[in-house]
Amino acid sequence: MDIHAIIQEMGLRARDAAQQLARLPARRKNAILMAMADEIEQSAAAIKAANAVDVENGRQAGLSDAMLDRLVLTDERISSMARGLRSVAALKDPVGTRISRWIRPNGLEIVKQRVPIGVIGIVYESRPNVTADTSALCLKTANAVILRGGKEALASNLAIAAALKAGGMRKGMPEFAIQMIDFTEREAVRELVQMEGKVDLIIPRGGEALIRAVTEQARVPVIKHYKGVCHVYVDESADLEMALSVTENAKCQRPGVCNAIEALLVHEAVAPVFLPELAQKLEQRGVKIKGCANTLKILPKIEAATEADWPNEWLDLVLSIKTVASVEEAVDHINTYGSHHSDAIIAENEQAQKRFVQDVDSSTVYINASTRFTDGGEFGMGAEIGISTDKLHARGPMGLEELTTYKYIVAGKGQIRE
Amino acid sequence: MDIHAIIQEMGLRARDAAQQLARLPARRKNAILMAMADEIEQSAAAIKAANAVDVENGRQAGLSDAMLDRLVLTDERISSMARGLRSVAALKDPVGTRISRWIRPNGLEIVKQRVPIGVIGIVYESRPNVTADTSALCLKTANAVILRGGKEALASNLAIAAALKAGGMRKGMPEFAIQMIDFTEREAVRELVQMEGKVDLIIPRGGEALIRAVTEQARVPVIKHYKGVCHVYVDESADLEMALSVTENAKCQRPGVCNAIEALLVHEAVAPVFLPELAQKLEQRGVKIKGCANTLKILPKIEAATEADWPNEWLDLVLSIKTVASVEEAVDHINTYGSHHSDAIIAENEQAQKRFVQDVDSSTVYINASTRFTDGGEFGMGAEIGISTDKLHARGPMGLEELTTYKYIVAGKGQIRE
Repeated sequence: MDIHAIIQEMGLRARDAAQQLARLPARRKNAILMAMADEIEQSAAAIKAANAVDVENGRQAGLSDAMLDRLVLTDERISSMARGLRSVAALKDPVGTRISRWIRPNGLEIVKQRVPIGVIGIVYESRPNVTADTSALCLKTANAVILRGGKEALASNLAIAAALKAGGMRKGMPEFAIQMIDFTEREAVRELVQMEGKVDLIIPRGGEALIRAVTEQARVPVIKHYKGVCHVYVDESADLEMALSVTENAKCQRPGVCNAIEALLVHEAVAPVFLPELAQKLEQRGVKIKGCANTLKILPKIEAATEADWPNEWLDLVLSIKTVASVEEAVDHINTYGSHHSDAIIAENEQAQKRFVQDVDSSTVYINASTRFTDGGEFGMGAEIGISTDKLHARGPMGLEELTTYKYIVAGKGQIRE
Repeated sequence: MDIHAIIQEMGLRARDAAQQLARLPARRKNAILMAMADEIEQSAAAIKAANAVDVENGRQAGLSDAMLDRLVLTDERISSMARGLRSVAALKDPVGTRISRWIRPNGLEIVKQRVPIGVIGIVYESRPNVTADTSALCLKTANAVILRGGKEALASNLAIAAALKAGGMRKGMPEFAIQMIDFTEREAVRELVQMEGKVDLIIPRGGEALIRAVTEQARVPVIKHYKGVCHVYVDESADLEMALSVTENAKCQRPGVCNAIEALLVHEAVAPVFLPELAQKLEQRGVKIKGCANTLKILPKIEAATEADWPNEWLDLVLSIKTVASVEEAVDHINTYGSHHSDAIIAENEQAQKRFVQDVDSSTVYINASTRFTDGGEFGMGAEIGISTDKLHARGPMGLEELTTYKYIVAGKGQIRE
């Protein structure tokens, strides 16, 4: 198998498809999405049969229960994919909208117009629903997509992609608007992420190891987030009731996701009052606490935190706690150990709020609210292809607009430069 | 010399400086820029002395006259740098402006606010004025900058950077807001462009070889343009007088720059009338023409173009000419051989115009105007740090706004996620 040739050919086909996609009006793209949803539902039996093969292979390969759970497709999960496709059809199409327009003194009209990015490569891991979700967002924004899913979900992903293509093509989708790499050799990823000129953007979705591997090999721009090491800082001016409730929510409501907090910073002036109450509350929720030396003095029964704990993404019911002497110390800690994702201050003092939102170098900074709101849906974007902790192009939740770029269209009457 | 340690230390210092810069109000940054301009003027003698060393070394190393010309600093060029600094001071500061704001049903206020990118690395070649120009744009947008100029301009660049720092620091600029790598080992570039977490963006400015080297080594995002292979397409519906004037301007007004055209496409229906007139005009301007087989039939005295000529950036008074049977063929040619920079259609037919601007995948597409207008100044941006042929973050001329990113600031009253 000549992997280089296969991936290059996919790139060429995607480029052609992208040009055709860019010409489709919104109503045509929406009809395609609706037909995809219908086809996913009608193909439920075939998708489940393919999925059963993946699950059985996974079981034999010794996948953990958590991984098997992510892999398995139930009727409800298949319906949920179809609902997702229909909800993307209902969103406003950003393609073709005018970002700005101005006239130069020489009469040239300059229009900055939103256009598709072109060809997007998605590299992801075990959840097969990513196949449908990301295809829908790319189709809506008229981007051709090349999908590379995890090897443990290959049969499921191919069945889903086949349904998407069959449904979409019935309504005029270009054949190569959605392509899936149908073999598992790793070399395919390297080819894909180095295909400058044919692929415009790579979005990796998965664990830190996957994302690092993609970033290190890529020549094509990558938008990513490595991890979510989020913080709540409780200022000395905080409403402590609010601080309790927000901390509990940010840690416990769904500890395995990127916008849950991993560490809590508490101003030393309020720590002696706040921490015992918090510890009691968190203990009831089954949270294990690891604390700095100062925290240990207040909560003698907890474990000591080590330097390695501060940048750690627990993704579990574990919380690191540190006391700080000032908002500046909290900011420094967050910028040093955090992941530039989401961080919150609980404070009534406006100077402290201002300093925090100014200096914390994160995609989303919160005043008196839980970090759990960093999410395309919670932001009102309607859909999300990921959350970026990068600073270029897209930062924070990425919706449809972030899957577009712009071009300048300059119209004249024969103007030349003197 | 431990290059790794030196560059890492520069990165840490830049990160600190960036945080301090982000807090400066616009009037403070403008005072810094004005003081830099004064200091550049007052240091003219020292800058010229340093420059004389570079020029003498360059002469002995056998630099071409063109390269020596780019290197040499006259009183006028030094004044021009100072004027550039003052004109950047006069521009509107984009930092802190609100891009959008909305309230969610749960009462959360979400503000999308423009903020500095952080730390920007500039890797460039021989023109020493780039030191002042890029420092000014980075300072205005509160980004710390690490400069890596060409080895042939090292003494000049260091003298300019010293003046910028001395002037700026008198008005409160953080010491490490502007840093220049003061040695010429190539390893420094690799360290710089791989310093994830300390450098946020790399902008290479120079020839294609420099830009490829930077892109291939980089882990940090890069915004670039490799080359400017721009086109004019003369449609069958074109006003041929206009086509003559625009083609002559786009080719001849300044052939050595990226937005000059390298190739002309002419609809076969008008080629027999248009090409002889054009050839006569271009001959008077000293332009050498290379043509496709069809063009040769109309202009028998010219040289035949080869396949290798179509993607070539002549940067000189040379023009490749090809006849095409349709606007679609013109678009395909441009997307295949062009560099996604600037391309123009000369046409009266609106369908042809529409097809062209829709399908040509370039940063800037023109209807009835010269490609020479792709420029920050001509677009009214007031300043330009480069022209991007990438699609992510910035496309086309990059002004001050393109040197910023955004963060979300979310303010609540203790909202938690259910």
